[in-house]
Amino acid sequence: MVGGGRDAFIGAVHRMAARLDDRTELVAGALSSDPERARLSAADIGIGADRAYSSFAEMAEREAGRPDGIEAVIIVTPNHLHAPVAKAFLAAGIDVICDKPLSATLAEAEELAALARASGLVFAVTFNNTGYAMVREARAMVAAGQLGTLRVVRVEYIQDWLTQPIDADGQKQAEWRTDPERAGRSACLADIGVHAFNLAQFVTGMAPEAVAADLTTFVPGRRLDDNAHVLLRYADGARGVLIASQVSPGSGNRLALKLYGDKAGLEWLGHEPEIMRFTPFGEPTRILVRGGPGLGPASADVSRMPSEHLEGYIEGFANLYRDAVDAILRRRSGEGASGGHVPSVEDGLLGMRFIEAAVNSSLAGSAWTRL
Amino acid sequence: MVGGGRDAFIGAVHRMAARLDDRTELVAGALSSDPERARLSAADIGIGADRAYSSFAEMAEREAGRPDGIEAVIIVTPNHLHAPVAKAFLAAGIDVICDKPLSATLAEAEELAALARASGLVFAVTFNNTGYAMVREARAMVAAGQLGTLRVVRVEYIQDWLTQPIDADGQKQAEWRTDPERAGRSACLADIGVHAFNLAQFVTGMAPEAVAADLTTFVPGRRLDDNAHVLLRYADGARGVLIASQVSPGSGNRLALKLYGDKAGLEWLGHEPEIMRFTPFGEPTRILVRGGPGLGPASADVSRMPSEHLEGYIEGFANLYRDAVDAILRRRSGEGASGGHVPSVEDGLLGMRFIEAAVNSSLAGSAWTRL
Amino acid sequence: MVGGGRDAFIGAVHRMAARLDDRTELVAGALSSDPERARLSAADIGIGADRAYSSFAEMAEREAGRPDGIEAVIIVTPNHLHAPVAKAFLAAGIDVICDKPLSATLAEAEELAALARASGLVFAVTFNNTGYAMVREARAMVAAGQLGTLRVVRVEYIQDWLTQPIDADGQKQAEWRTDPERAGRSACLADIGVHAFNLAQFVTGMAPEAVAADLTTFVPGRRLDDNAHVLLRYADGARGVLIASQVSPGSGNRLALKLYGDKAGLEWLGHEPEIMRFTPFGEPTRILVRGGPGLGPASADVSRMPSEHLEGYIEGFANLYRDAVDAILRRRSGEGASGGHVPSVEDGLLGMRFIEAAVNSSLAGSAWTRL
Amino acid sequence: MVGGGRDAFIGAVHRMAARLDDRTELVAGALSSDPERARLSAADIGIGADRAYSSFAEMAEREAGRPDGIEAVIIVTPNHLHAPVAKAFLAAGIDVICDKPLSATLAEAEELAALARASGLVFAVTFNNTGYAMVREARAMVAAGQLGTLRVVRVEYIQDWLTQPIDADGQKQAEWRTDPERAGRSACLADIGVHAFNLAQFVTGMAPEAVAADLTTFVPGRRLDDNAHVLLRYADGARGVLIASQVSPGSGNRLALKLYGDKAGLEWLGHEPEIMRFTPFGEPTRILVRGGPGLGPASADVSRMPSEHLEGYIEGFANLYRDAVDAILRRRSGEGASGGHVPSVEDGLLGMRFIEAAVNSSLAGSAWTRL
Repeated sequence: MVGGGRDAFIGAVHRMAARLDDRTELVAGALSSDPERARLSAADIGIGADRAYSSFAEMAEREAGRPDGIEAVIIVTPNHLHAPVAKAFLAAGIDVICDKPLSATLAEAEELAALARASGLVFAVTFNNTGYAMVREARAMVAAGQLGTLRVVRVEYIQDWLTQPIDADGQKQAEWRTDPERAGRSACLADIGVHAFNLAQFVTGMAPEAVAADLTTFVPGRRLDDNAHVLLRYADGARGVLIASQVSPGSGNRLALKLYGDKAGLEWLGHEPEIMRFTPFGEPTRILVRGGPGLGPASADVSRMPSEHLEGYIEGFANLYRDAVDAILRRRSGEGASGGHVPSVEDGLLGMRFIEAAVNSSLAGSAWTRL
Repeated sequence: MVGGGRDAFIGAVHRMAARLDDRTELVAGALSSDPERARLSAADIGIGADRAYSSFAEMAEREAGRPDGIEAVIIVTPNHLHAPVAKAFLAAGIDVICDKPLSATLAEAEELAALARASGLVFAVTFNNTGYAMVREARAMVAAGQLGTLRVVRVEYIQDWLTQPIDADGQKQAEWRTDPERAGRSACLADIGVHAFNLAQFVTGMAPEAVAADLTTFVPGRRLDDNAHVLLRYADGARGVLIASQVSPGSGNRLALKLYGDKAGLEWLGHEPEIMRFTPFGEPTRILVRGGPGLGPASADVSRMPSEHLEGYIEGFANLYRDAVDAILRRRSGEGASGGHVPSVEDGLLGMRFIEAAVNSSLAGSAWTRL
Repeated sequence: MVGGGRDAFIGAVHRMAARLDDRTELVAGALSSDPERARLSAADIGIGADRAYSSFAEMAEREAGRPDGIEAVIIVTPNHLHAPVAKAFLAAGIDVICDKPLSATLAEAEELAALARASGLVFAVTFNNTGYAMVREARAMVAAGQLGTLRVVRVEYIQDWLTQPIDADGQKQAEWRTDPERAGRSACLADIGVHAFNLAQFVTGMAPEAVAADLTTFVPGRRLDDNAHVLLRYADGARGVLIASQVSPGSGNRLALKLYGDKAGLEWLGHEPEIMRFTPFGEPTRILVRGGPGLGPASADVSRMPSEHLEGYIEGFANLYRDAVDAILRRRSGEGASGGHVPSVEDGLLGMRFIEAAVNSSLAGSAWTRL
Repeated sequence: MVGGGRDAFIGAVHRMAARLDDRTELVAGALSSDPERARLSAADIGIGADRAYSSFAEMAEREAGRPDGIEAVIIVTPNHLHAPVAKAFLAAGIDVICDKPLSATLAEAEELAALARASGLVFAVTFNNTGYAMVREARAMVAAGQLGTLRVVRVEYIQDWLTQPIDADGQKQAEWRTDPERAGRSACLADIGVHAFNLAQFVTGMAPEAVAADLTTFVPGRRLDDNAHVLLRYADGARGVLIASQVSPGSGNRLALKLYGDKAGLEWLGHEPEIMRFTPFGEPTRILVRGGPGLGPASADVSRMPSEHLEGYIEGFANLYRDAVDAILRRRSGEGASGGHVPSVEDGLLGMRFIEAAVNSSLAGSAWTRL
């Protein structure tokens, strides 16, 4: 693991997710670039002193040289380090599991995707919402034509934790996410908007060809956007709206995906991840429940518990690890690194194109801008 | 009443709403332009044969001449007749209660507003959602600064009844609403989008200065839009999104208003009209209930029932009639026609400007267009 | 109308409900036994001074003698007056619409039912929850066997307004409802428990043969129960629980009915009266919505508005008036007073038997007690 | 681990819960009494062949004798084996983590509790619902007097998976749970009713002194109850209702706790475990959210994720393991085995007394029966 030391947030989540199914072991880490902090953080989580690094480059090199070296690296640093770290491990021939967004800039993302493609290695991007069982089911239903031709895509990711200038007040999580040097050209889109974008793409199987965006910074002194309203146009005529906000009091962490086709509508809410509202036009709405009747293998394959024994955020995240482990095993067995459900470097790249297009559109008076 | 004969929908709603508080009596009507249908429709609802007209012009003239002539007219025709009918009754010195949208074209709306202003008569537009008690409360809370400075306005009105081409198949309600001759330049915005627009304006006390719109017609053969995605910009920096759709399976009639300020957020849903979620930033969300604790006079003034004895669509509509009757009594007592809560011809005009700007923006590649 | 003067609550509700469909006219009243209050209350609501009585006996006698005398009386007094008033009007040959519970004592109820049967007159008891469209639909579904054999009946009516001793503090509505002289042997059961009992009976088509009850008075100084837990046993083996409480903070007015058969389950909540959750065993739960797909004539027959245009408490109450008017017209046309959906004096009597049995059971250590 | 081999359900849940926080390692098991199945099941989950037993007695003896022997045993067998297995490990001086109910009979439970007390060992019973963060918070709120004097306790645990005779059809999970030899005197109460009982006891801090129960077997051929309605009386005058059912179609796994005091009411639902409705009388209902404002350390102490990043069933279960590990470390450090949040053998015993009293009451015509 690179990143994820003391005071970090998402590193611990990755560790729990990776551990849940007992198919991974964490044996090395560059948890901080500060040597002392790196050492202490490693000790906290049982990584031996000999494999506790403070330099990711050194870690990549030395682990690649060990007979018992790591089989994959997990990257949980701030955005701007994703690309340099990933490049180092790709170069060392090590499979990569990287947090989103893929990088801080589109240029880095393009380069990284090219390297990953050339390497033949697994490059998983942890768009964790794709791991929810009912998201998998939704994707299968769309693919099976249960909604008919998709017309309208509405996706939202709404939070409130940046309502006040806590970034200026030194809150660490807020600080780097709103810092152009570390976050990239957008704060809100890079942090959560890209999750919403990816979720819609994952379930619908299609990405918009153009966006018209209105990004705003509401909190005085903040250096990047904290609210984004984005119109979407798809190649086949479908239309969409993507809303991301971190200044919406009362919405702690609200993700929603609503899809409407000519045959049916479907609604999934991130805070009720185990159910889905499905309405074939002209019939009553059905509440589909993970593990319950009316579902197929897509959700069953990633279920650990019976119906209505709630699987939440960590379990969804763990499904990505399950898929990533499968992908790594497939690659090592010679079956190749692609395929499966786990979001790839291409999905990560697409997310970066979305951010780039949305920022450019917003700067151009919300003009329609191609991805 | 003009319009509202057999087979009509909204006429009966107006009659129930007007009757609920026992302050009006329906004594004359031009319920249809077809004489036989007009006669039968009048008989159905107890209007005497001598006051059952088939011409609104004749009705205006003759009622104005009777000593017991009507005190106000209710206009519930398709959109394109709103203006001609209203003009006839204004000219006859009769107060007007008119369904939304104000007219089929912006030019008519401008003319009508000028006539109404000059007349000194009451001109109420039945944007009925403004009648819900909790909508009144929300407006009072915003006005009192409980949300702080408004940053984000999100409003949606979503239906599914036009998912299939029932207009082409002769369904009467669908037919005129999607007919440019009778509906105007937009179907979805004129039918429900303008309700959403007005609701947001009523509660926030402000209208956007510009919109960027993406209107779509999804159903083959349909002549006007059936889905609208609209970005909003307000003079003081607030931003918004307005979504209207009549092709969203599973959403029979879903209206939602969500407001976020720098102090608090507020959410109101049309299908749960008696409650409101209110979240001062940094405090737990509170469920405010009509008639319950924590509310002021704005909702109490329009309540008929104790808390949790559900008042619904008709009751909300009836509150508009209550206000319109008050306004008419005030005007007759010499206090003037303005003031009070009831949406005015100016609100109707603003709605028409919104539709015009949104249609123009959509035709111009979603360019920002001023109202 | 007898009762329902100034300061009364339910009288105004009856008047709105009776007025909504424009099939009744209120022309006479004994709104209070205090002559001055009776006169003023009548004037408030447009009843002429010559038909404003302060004695219900006088009203019954004089109205019966007028050629334009009332066709039916509405009784909205406290419980203990229901029987004497109803007897007076039955004796005068006038149809009766009476609020619940039927009387203050079971003996009165038995006598009244006998008189009503003998009279051949309409005797409607306003168990208003039976008027909700989806309650009608639920009854039809049970009758059609959609739930299979009923096994479990769970019904609750929960409020919080008596959490504190407001009866002792002189709040009028609380005062008479907790006064044994005016309410009868139970407060909570007579006020709301009997509604829950009737709702379950109406929908299931069956009444329990025995109850085991635990009635409690939590508020110090209160003279009757404010909380009731009742087990139910039905003749064919079904079992149930009925809960009524007026001391449950956070529950303003919560009514719930849940039925489980060997084929399906069904849940209806009074605060979301327009929907019903229906789950055939082994299939996804369906959200049935008034006016929406999958429903039959039972709900359509009492709908005024399209789907998701919320009809609430008053509309449900108005459906009882619609049915009562139909029953009165049928009787007058010689078709007889019985039949239709409106709860009868027999239903009122059954409610009184339930209260009696529950009170007796509670006094006997919750022993099973037959109705 | 004893039990939990192939085809078992709850064993895998315990393993995930134990693993989540990385404080335990599973090194030995008697996963089945069938030697071949025991061997294969152990291999499935990485237990070495030398520590894969088919006899729990042998496991207790041999592990106690190893220098690296297990520090605690997890018992996840059917009910009737809980006591014999637990006795064997207590006798071997090994701390016990045992699934609920404590045993199949009250006599066994009494004996086991006595042995556990005498041993000084940790004896944790996995009433897993006590692990939910908001359940912890609820307990703290009750203890702090935020509800005032408790008046009414309502608790339900409702399922539908036994609606049809799948036990007779050989479904393994159903078979043993409805078999008097393996489940004890009650099926529904032993499987889920005791969870509801324990949840109410955990949060309120008090157990009823008497119950009046009506247990029913609805499915023909079933040998034990599948539905239970139980009235509760507490020493200080509080009253309650406990409902458990496994034949309620549409309720996959619904747990609910509602508490009403003289100051406030509180509602928690197992399928929305991260929120709680809290209503101080006379104030608006507040939605308390794990990790959100208005909460204390009780929930924070068992949170892994920020607010609205859903922690579900496994996480709640894992909190019990966290507490059990803490208790074991405390005992080993000489601080003693008692204290902390983890349900003890006394709680397990109380649950058995509840089942015994409820079964006896039901057999005695629902007579009030002391625990």
